[in-house]
Amino acid sequence: MMINIALAQLNYHVGNFESNTKKIIGTIETARRQGADLVVFSELCVCGYPARDFFEFTEFIGLCEEAAQQIAAVCTDIACIIGLPTPNLKEQGKDLFNSAYFIENGKVKAVVNKALLPNYDVFDEYRYFEPETDFNCIDFKGHRIALTICEDLWNTIENPLYITRPMDKLIEQQPDVMINIAASPFAYNHDKERIDILSNNSKQYHLPLFYVNQVGAQTELIFDGGSLVFDDKGDMLDELPYFKEHIAYYQLDKAGDKAVISFNHTPTVKPEYTGDIEQIHQGLLLGIRDYFYKSGFTRAILGLSGGIDSAVVCALAAEALGPDNVMAVLLPSRFSSDHSVTDADDLVTNLGCKSETIAIKNITEAFETALHPQFQNLPFNIAEENIQSRSRAVLLMAMCNKFGYILLNTSNKSEAAVGYGTLYGDMCGGISVLGDVYKTQVYQLANYINREREIIPINSIVKPPSAELRPGQKDSDSLPDYDILDTILLEYIENRKSSKEIISMGYDEQVVRRIIKLVNTAEHKRYQTPPILRVSPKAFGMGRRMPIVGKYLS
Amino acid sequence: MMINIALAQLNYHVGNFESNTKKIIGTIETARRQGADLVVFSELCVCGYPARDFFEFTEFIGLCEEAAQQIAAVCTDIACIIGLPTPNLKEQGKDLFNSAYFIENGKVKAVVNKALLPNYDVFDEYRYFEPETDFNCIDFKGHRIALTICEDLWNTIENPLYITRPMDKLIEQQPDVMINIAASPFAYNHDKERIDILSNNSKQYHLPLFYVNQVGAQTELIFDGGSLVFDDKGDMLDELPYFKEHIAYYQLDKAGDKAVISFNHTPTVKPEYTGDIEQIHQGLLLGIRDYFYKSGFTRAILGLSGGIDSAVVCALAAEALGPDNVMAVLLPSRFSSDHSVTDADDLVTNLGCKSETIAIKNITEAFETALHPQFQNLPFNIAEENIQSRSRAVLLMAMCNKFGYILLNTSNKSEAAVGYGTLYGDMCGGISVLGDVYKTQVYQLANYINREREIIPINSIVKPPSAELRPGQKDSDSLPDYDILDTILLEYIENRKSSKEIISMGYDEQVVRRIIKLVNTAEHKRYQTPPILRVSPKAFGMGRRMPIVGKYLS
Repeated sequence: MMINIALAQLNYHVGNFESNTKKIIGTIETARRQGADLVVFSELCVCGYPARDFFEFTEFIGLCEEAAQQIAAVCTDIACIIGLPTPNLKEQGKDLFNSAYFIENGKVKAVVNKALLPNYDVFDEYRYFEPETDFNCIDFKGHRIALTICEDLWNTIENPLYITRPMDKLIEQQPDVMINIAASPFAYNHDKERIDILSNNSKQYHLPLFYVNQVGAQTELIFDGGSLVFDDKGDMLDELPYFKEHIAYYQLDKAGDKAVISFNHTPTVKPEYTGDIEQIHQGLLLGIRDYFYKSGFTRAILGLSGGIDSAVVCALAAEALGPDNVMAVLLPSRFSSDHSVTDADDLVTNLGCKSETIAIKNITEAFETALHPQFQNLPFNIAEENIQSRSRAVLLMAMCNKFGYILLNTSNKSEAAVGYGTLYGDMCGGISVLGDVYKTQVYQLANYINREREIIPINSIVKPPSAELRPGQKDSDSLPDYDILDTILLEYIENRKSSKEIISMGYDEQVVRRIIKLVNTAEHKRYQTPPILRVSPKAFGMGRRMPIVGKYLS
Repeated sequence: MMINIALAQLNYHVGNFESNTKKIIGTIETARRQGADLVVFSELCVCGYPARDFFEFTEFIGLCEEAAQQIAAVCTDIACIIGLPTPNLKEQGKDLFNSAYFIENGKVKAVVNKALLPNYDVFDEYRYFEPETDFNCIDFKGHRIALTICEDLWNTIENPLYITRPMDKLIEQQPDVMINIAASPFAYNHDKERIDILSNNSKQYHLPLFYVNQVGAQTELIFDGGSLVFDDKGDMLDELPYFKEHIAYYQLDKAGDKAVISFNHTPTVKPEYTGDIEQIHQGLLLGIRDYFYKSGFTRAILGLSGGIDSAVVCALAAEALGPDNVMAVLLPSRFSSDHSVTDADDLVTNLGCKSETIAIKNITEAFETALHPQFQNLPFNIAEENIQSRSRAVLLMAMCNKFGYILLNTSNKSEAAVGYGTLYGDMCGGISVLGDVYKTQVYQLANYINREREIIPINSIVKPPSAELRPGQKDSDSLPDYDILDTILLEYIENRKSSKEIISMGYDEQVVRRIIKLVNTAEHKRYQTPPILRVSPKAFGMGRRMPIVGKYLS
């Protein structure tokens, strides 16, 4: 029998049952009007993903079930698949399952629980959920559906992280189609891997596959959507848009004992994967937008130095929130060069955002005067450098407190890695926009932002980077060139190589050891930085959990 | 056959293989001189617990094995049990096991892997380790040892978190003694629970039990030691000291087919459990001391307001580090009352620590002047209040940068909970001393510190608490009394009750809803606070992982 399946790739708000339920029910009604028999939503859509320790509150679990019942009530003549946490009623094991409800005729017809619970990098699912060990297909209008949840399809043959594979059990019941609901966060190299793994599942089990992913950012985690449809040979039939909500419709029919997918729209399969930088750009825009929207704020503020990092953040914020909602503050000191101010002014003009200029000279002098009895005539050093950076932070936060802005942090991943930043100074902010973007990638982002016209002044891109906290200071005084630095950092942070291995790749031993020591000893600083929008496979923050007083100076 | 067993309750430094190995080998040599046949060290002692994502580095795992081989080399005529991560050589599952080596005759005689991997609260063991499913006892000089690792004995019958119980398998091999090596962190209510659970194991399996726990603080986690010895009826025979290193010796002999423990020293079993506050006091001292020692710092700085929180932190720091190593800075503003300064001065005199006074008036005026073009004549509000708090932080951090202090954070748990603190102001610091101590407990701590003589001025204890950021401000202007506030917070944070449940306990609905909303909306602030010394079963930090842009205003 031919059935009409809608894939709903939506942006949820963690814990906002009112808006999530309204969105789900609204989508069911839209799909019904389009003749859909079944609407498939993403993993844990009822509460949004990741709900983290909200799961430890009994009340929260009750609210999830209440929302599910409201959704079931509108499904009298249409079926749907939703995700939510459900209590584990067995005597042993953790309190919850990560579940999918198959809802038909206004009722929960079947419950599927996740078996493979990711607990690496940013994932903490084993903290909350008991893994399922029992598997059953679901019959629906002449089709037998093997329904699984995200990681359940990710136990690859090459690198089997788990000792079970749910599809190996489900296939024995002879399903004719697979559906997988997911909340799979973005990293610039993740879409390719995702497509490969899902395609391999289709190939291995000789079944077509519908895959629905969450879209939207939840603080640091950005979910990119890009839901997928495969035929039973592993060929990709359709790829939903990335970084935005989308609903797409498919017909599932039988040809003999095989299920066959067809659809009327033009497939959005891209001929090639878009570049990393384009994806990072889109991801950061979504990350900024959702952070503000879901926090109930509209306006951003940032300190504009004339350098490339704050310029890129300002341009991204202007695109994400609208230039009217972005306040760029120039905070020149006695060490600021003339070009810093003119470059910053040019950017403000190009973007059409708001700006103010507040000189910090009198403030830093007031600090130095107050500290004179303690500091006496000790030489100018990091203490005075940091006073400048921290004075700027106090001014920016005062603007936030007075006018209701959120401060955007402008540190990049290279700086964050080596601790090249001032805690409670330039490391402040509500959210870090570039904290997972290496400096070399920041340059690429700047060029990408300038792809049609000069938005970021070329001078901000070509001049040697400097914190301008002392006369004539340049980043290259204390750090190797950024292309070398970033490669060493990538090998250590993303690839977990030892200094020995990195040195054997041809890098200078002293440089490598110094850089890795800097990374390790900056752990206490990174602990107190704002959440960082994650765009790489290994971002600082919840996905990288390092000791602070540990000693491991490789 | 009678054997002599040494329990080694030691303080390790995460990732410091040199010092850990030296300490373990030194202890083996001491134990050998005392005639020991077997020395038992605690869980993961080779690398220290918790090593967190260090486990993801292949080099780190190699260093653990190297250290184990060095330890094995000295065990020619004595056996030992040490803990370390080891590679999982099976084709499937995670890369590592959390293992114990039983070393005899200079070689690893047996490897035991942990089966139950805690993954709740502060624990992330399932992030790294594969659970063991195969269990074997170890024969040693006529005794058969059931060796397990920490959580392996913690699957209680009342609340079975796991579906297996390693001792149920091991008991089939008829061991005559249990040994459990652990790294079980301190919480003020944890010692009683630990004793009950371990006693129940002895009772259930009719076996004597040696339990060795780690001692010492690793950033936020404080390990309290308190290693234990039980007879086969579950009666506690001995309890090692809390919060300090200790080695104790026992004779294990056979009476028929039963093993019997005896020892020559006076048992340190306490007649009653020491009070919560005494334990918290000891824990915080160890937490401060180890944070500084393991970071390679000796000197602390803090802002002294004349209020109770900073007074208690100052007293704790002086006891932990020595008064000479504590710099108390008075930072009066135009809103500081006279008694604030005199109370702070009295404390400094009582403690004999160092002090400086730096007035912030000229600095806050410089900020206000600089911001006049933006703020115009808008009324004094939170913006100006926070400028004071942040100006103090800039001064304290400048002192840190100039002289090499670590700033101690003085916020208490009640403030941290409701967001009653200034981000980048009084929320700064390298480590938070009282961030897991409710205000009502801070008063108890102050009285405890004064148990023999007045160290903390009585006036700091009895005066109404105030942040003194505007004229006549008092905490009670915007918060309920601390005994009510703290009870509501405890029910929400520690006990995960809903507002409905708390209201039904008799608390005012409006107050409860407002407090819980404050807790939830302060999540973004707490994200950026320093690591907090954990003394309760639910501390802010790694053990409580909440969404930031989530909506859950119970």
